[in-house]
Amino acid sequence: MADYTFFTNPMSRGQIARWALHEAGADYDQVLVDWKDKPAAFLAANPMGKVPTLIHHAEDGDRVVTEAAAICLYLAEMHPEAGLLPNDSEMADYYRWTFFASGPVEQAITSRSLRFEPTPEQEAMAGWGNFDRTMDALEAHLDNVRWVCGDRFTMADVYVGSSVDWGLNFGVMPPRRAFVGYAERVQSRRAYKAAKAVDNALIAEMRK
Amino acid sequence: MADYTFFTNPMSRGQIARWALHEAGADYDQVLVDWKDKPAAFLAANPMGKVPTLIHHAEDGDRVVTEAAAICLYLAEMHPEAGLLPNDSEMADYYRWTFFASGPVEQAITSRSLRFEPTPEQEAMAGWGNFDRTMDALEAHLDNVRWVCGDRFTMADVYVGSSVDWGLNFGVMPPRRAFVGYAERVQSRRAYKAAKAVDNALIAEMRK
Repeated sequence: MADYTFFTNPMSRGQIARWALHEAGADYDQVLVDWKDKPAAFLAANPMGKVPTLIHHAEDGDRVVTEAAAICLYLAEMHPEAGLLPNDSEMADYYRWTFFASGPVEQAITSRSLRFEPTPEQEAMAGWGNFDRTMDALEAHLDNVRWVCGDRFTMADVYVGSSVDWGLNFGVMPPRRAFVGYAERVQSRRAYKAAKAVDNALIAEMRK
Repeated sequence: MADYTFFTNPMSRGQIARWALHEAGADYDQVLVDWKDKPAAFLAANPMGKVPTLIHHAEDGDRVVTEAAAICLYLAEMHPEAGLLPNDSEMADYYRWTFFASGPVEQAITSRSLRFEPTPEQEAMAGWGNFDRTMDALEAHLDNVRWVCGDRFTMADVYVGSSVDWGLNFGVMPPRRAFVGYAERVQSRRAYKAAKAVDNALIAEMRK
């Protein structure tokens, strides 16, 4: 058995976790989840019934990780030799922007996609404030750095990079120069290409 | 100057960060942010104009951390002597539930509060699926553990515990037995009481 069992679907946020697995150099078995017939082992691990869900078969027992961003940070910790953990001076940006992408950016995009945008009076209650302010804050950071933590790629880039890459691909984020440039750097990663090749082949297979 | 400058407002998610600062035993100066007249140093640090925002005056320069959950995890890393970091076997739950609370739980509560609930067709697009499934998943975990990572309090409890405590106080989370019991354990923390005492005194002062 591989170290990890990875429940995924190629057309889902599972693409983020697969890229993280490849960056970490992790040994995994994949289980493809059919939305209409979810495996019992999967629902037992994650009652939300959401992919990606990762089971780590550790020496002291099985550990379940859900939430794409959590899977990224967990894998960085389990595979320190991959060099994806932040050093002391990178740690503020590492956590700040991972939570910024999984929180405000995700909420801003989802609310716009679902046509549920807060009114000006509601903005104080909504953690993301409004769509434009969220995009402006992310742009201001990415305009000044090569990677989330500065000059060096870390696991934060797998999550933040996936958000920007996906957002541009689906037209839900504005194609600002800082976003486009960052997405191009992301796409040049060897592990990104390897992971996307697997998911794209699975998608092609499903469409046959 | 203290190690940290803490921009907050007593009636905000700043309460989460203050509790984290007290758990970590961090030395901080607070700057109260008036919504109508935000200080320039604050807006420079966080263009979102949101509290809590933390500036760590580190030896290699100032580091800015935003997003309440990121501030919690960052402080745990900077103050390992406080014993709030997860060990290896606690790490899956540590990341999973911190991101679950800052993602699906936050989104489920916000969308309900703003009366923006997804239709059944939209649930697949919404990361939290629906409100009840999100509450059920959190309840199933908290029903089986004393703290997020099992028997031991970690920084994940500051964030997850704040979500549950706040959710019950404001009536936006259902008062299920597992939530109420967990909130009581949270409220018994010495640092929780110390932090709340400061915020409550500030709130009383503002109401005079």
